Amino acid sequence: MIAATVMDSIWATRKADSLRGLKFMLVEVQGGIDAGRLMIAADNIGAGIGERVLVCTGSSARKMLERDDIPVDAVIVGIIDEDCVF
Amino acid sequence: MIAATVMDSIWATRKADSLRGLKFMLVEVQGGIDAGRLMIAADNIGAGIGERVLVCTGSSARKMLERDDIPVDAVIVGIIDEDCVF
Amino acid sequence: MIAATVMDSIWATRKADSLRGLKFMLVEVQGGIDAGRLMIAADNIGAGIGERVLVCTGSSARKMLERDDIPVDAVIVGIIDEDCVF
Amino acid sequence: MIAATVMDSIWATRKADSLRGLKFMLVEVQGGIDAGRLMIAADNIGAGIGERVLVCTGSSARKMLERDDIPVDAVIVGIIDEDCVF
Amino acid sequence: MIAATVMDSIWATRKADSLRGLKFMLVEVQGGIDAGRLMIAADNIGAGIGERVLVCTGSSARKMLERDDIPVDAVIVGIIDEDCVF
Repeated sequence: MIAATVMDSIWATRKADSLRGLKFMLVEVQGGIDAGRLMIAADNIGAGIGERVLVCTGSSARKMLERDDIPVDAVIVGIIDEDCVF
Repeated sequence: MIAATVMDSIWATRKADSLRGLKFMLVEVQGGIDAGRLMIAADNIGAGIGERVLVCTGSSARKMLERDDIPVDAVIVGIIDEDCVF
Repeated sequence: MIAATVMDSIWATRKADSLRGLKFMLVEVQGGIDAGRLMIAADNIGAGIGERVLVCTGSSARKMLERDDIPVDAVIVGIIDEDCVF
Repeated sequence: MIAATVMDSIWATRKADSLRGLKFMLVEVQGGIDAGRLMIAADNIGAGIGERVLVCTGSSARKMLERDDIPVDAVIVGIIDEDCVF
Repeated sequence: MIAATVMDSIWATRKADSLRGLKFMLVEVQGGIDAGRLMIAADNIGAGIGERVLVCTGSSARKMLERDDIPVDAVIVGIIDEDCVF
């Protein structure tokens, strides 16, 4: 997983039917040599803009959605505690 | 997923039989430290040149095509709304 | 796999139910052109801060947890011997 | 997928039994920030040195070989038309 | 796959049970913009230090070990012929 900050919501009215109802968030990787990388992750745990999140990528991302037939390769799997400093 | 702009169509007359009928688009990653990365993504939702799209990569890309036997690792899964600024 | 050093524990109270009970560690890639990359890896072998570990990523990471339904894409699979110099 | 140019053949007499009979080509990524990346891709469509090809990576690469038990993570899936300028 | 040079053996006494008996080698990517990347790959074909090898990554790496339950994401699948110049 990577640690990232939620930057914004992403809206796509035209999209795969299987993606309807999913929320998508723009996240920016925090720290290390990948800092500043942008990704778009599905979110089903209600992360807010500005929060630091754990993002899981690849085939494992589909496990978060409990459906294996969705074309999603990045998902927010947790929200890092505010008092977790690193 | 990543946000990218559709740059061009890609034509490959000689290709795997399972790819026949699929449209391929050259896309360029937008924003962040990966800006300027080029990828070729299958498109079955009719994205146009210049549009900003969501691209899903890896095994999840095959889920968009509803066939698991196709050698494709990147697919356009949505078109980002024009008024979505980020 | 990559060789990394364990930097810190990561705490996320709000997370996917399937992640409850898993320990997450911030690790930093050691050596080569990826030195300084940060990743967050699940740990079920008890790696300590400062130890050098082997991290496995992607779908293979799930094999370490012996459950295929967990949204985890990086896992510590071994601790590099202290006298292993490279 | 990525667009790459076929640079050379790669020969490996000692290799996994399941790879016997497969042709391997050194390819170089063309364009964008990944230009100059080298990969070795299996080829079963007869790409020639100097040709521009589409390379599919990851688990999807195995779909090209119609066998899921082969340790191959990159395959040439198409040859880009000569008059396709991008 | 990528072309890499075997640099060293890696020893990890504490590791996942499923990894016992596997040999791990530190390899360095050769050529192109990824030159100097370090990876740790399982080896079951007996590659020696200094040899140039083909390394397969991701889920395909597990195919080399003929067991799908092992947390390994990189495997040496072949040894590049000494007279293969590229």
